[in-house]
Amino acid sequence: MKNAIEVLQKAAMEKGPLCVGLDTDPSYIPEKLMKAFGDPYEAILTYNHELIKRIAADGSACCFKVQIAYYEAMGLKGMELYVQTLRAVHEAGFVVIADVKRGDIAATAEAYARAHYAGDFEADIITLNPYMGFDTLKPYLKWCNEASFAPGSLPSSASYRVIGGERYTKGAFVLLCTSNPGMRNVEAAKLADGRCVRDLVGDELERLADDWYASNVDDDTTGDRCPPIGAVIGCTNADDARAMREAHKRIFALIPGYGAQGGGADTARALLAGAGGVVNSSRGIICAWQKDPLLEAQRESGALSISDMTAAASRAALKAKAELAGE
Amino acid sequence: MKNAIEVLQKAAMEKGPLCVGLDTDPSYIPEKLMKAFGDPYEAILTYNHELIKRIAADGSACCFKVQIAYYEAMGLKGMELYVQTLRAVHEAGFVVIADVKRGDIAATAEAYARAHYAGDFEADIITLNPYMGFDTLKPYLKWCNEASFAPGSLPSSASYRVIGGERYTKGAFVLLCTSNPGMRNVEAAKLADGRCVRDLVGDELERLADDWYASNVDDDTTGDRCPPIGAVIGCTNADDARAMREAHKRIFALIPGYGAQGGGADTARALLAGAGGVVNSSRGIICAWQKDPLLEAQRESGALSISDMTAAASRAALKAKAELAGE
Repeated sequence: MKNAIEVLQKAAMEKGPLCVGLDTDPSYIPEKLMKAFGDPYEAILTYNHELIKRIAADGSACCFKVQIAYYEAMGLKGMELYVQTLRAVHEAGFVVIADVKRGDIAATAEAYARAHYAGDFEADIITLNPYMGFDTLKPYLKWCNEASFAPGSLPSSASYRVIGGERYTKGAFVLLCTSNPGMRNVEAAKLADGRCVRDLVGDELERLADDWYASNVDDDTTGDRCPPIGAVIGCTNADDARAMREAHKRIFALIPGYGAQGGGADTARALLAGAGGVVNSSRGIICAWQKDPLLEAQRESGALSISDMTAAASRAALKAKAELAGE
Repeated sequence: MKNAIEVLQKAAMEKGPLCVGLDTDPSYIPEKLMKAFGDPYEAILTYNHELIKRIAADGSACCFKVQIAYYEAMGLKGMELYVQTLRAVHEAGFVVIADVKRGDIAATAEAYARAHYAGDFEADIITLNPYMGFDTLKPYLKWCNEASFAPGSLPSSASYRVIGGERYTKGAFVLLCTSNPGMRNVEAAKLADGRCVRDLVGDELERLADDWYASNVDDDTTGDRCPPIGAVIGCTNADDARAMREAHKRIFALIPGYGAQGGGADTARALLAGAGGVVNSSRGIICAWQKDPLLEAQRESGALSISDMTAAASRAALKAKAELAGE
């Protein structure tokens, strides 16, 4: 059986590598529109729903990433919104990445795995923080390997999801080289043996890939399989990004930093070599209405509709898709 | 105005350093009792409520820590349970630590800060993961400093909480040296300059402490103030723990690993030197009913009540309090 990273890899090959980030903060909805809705939750849910539909129709993106922090910030009702957003992405036939960056001791990681791989908050792929050590990654691996899906080995809430007729296990992206300036502080710090801190993580991902290939891929396969554990590699620094891709060719990448955070398309494209990856854009797409030249009149009058906003998002997504394809 | 770490420091001085961890997994409730309740959420909520009352009455602990992972694992209803548990702790007059270990780029950290310092999920102190760099800690610091609480500088949902008549700002514990075996992988890795990775974090905490003292403490104070940013220092490895305490005397500590995880009381006590700290015990207290010699008959018949369970928890907490006091 395939894993969610492989399903995503295939979707990226077919539709291009753009991942739309649904970091829908209430402040991203025009004031007048928010007032017309009355209920901010209703406004955000409608925008997310319409946006997912629009992106499904225009073929600009291969998946969605939902940043849980923006939903947590809205409290209990925000978490309901999170559930409905995850479901809408899945029902539209897309892989959904939950950007949760969880990391904790093994007993707690078991709980986080149940939280985000099953039940209300079920996603296909989640992001993980490896700082506390590699024992903290293990509980998630169970959900990514077919053998673990045997009856009794996982909670009864565990599910095989199906996209395009294909059943698949879960996947994870581990933080390797993030897109923020502070990545210099710890991730890029020099170790006594000449490596950087992030290389400790990269080497562990290679080890996990070896293990996965050994138990999942027969000698006679054509080499089209991909391990269920990918890496987060930002595209804000070209040299770092290229070095990471060079060192970890087999590892599928989630690439943040493109667009609003300042990362260039050329660096993002360089990261699509090897096993490939998906390139996330959040504000560049969901806030495209703020800069779209076709919406100048509506912005001035404040008479923006959800449909105006999703049309601008679609234009931005198609432009990003073309840029990432080198067109 | 004091910060939540200072309120906690005072409480620890008065009541002893025990922190009760409310990691209430459904599997920690006896099967028969769970069935009698019918609804697992009701069972857990009742247990948490009764336990908080019991600990308030016996004086065994100075605060509670709520591990959000166990509540996330129960989905939306679990998050409601989380809200009610946080509130019950606060209403009982205790500082509540939300063990969320969040860490993300600054824009996202702003959202996490709003999520866990205000609104439904409001806690007094949260735990943070520093791996992505020190820019990712900044958004939380605003909530910990009195100046930031000026009108307009924080969302309208921001509140000063009051315990024992005293208003206070928020606080945070940053992961410094965790209690799991995997801490060797990254946190304890040797750097080129002779330090360890965790020393990068420790040195940043010292810098933050300097900044805080410079802007919050007048020259003529008696030295009883404490910075709002503490450190997580596990007590499972005695040498590591002592080295961390020696290096960071001014930093208040959240000490996991005591009891169920194998950390000894002597190491925990050593960590209470300097600025002091609180020692967390989760399973050692909430699962005490499983081993309590006074409940042998009830365990055999399966006729355990919530009251039996909280009585066992109270006995375990009082024993831990005495052990941590060196009695």
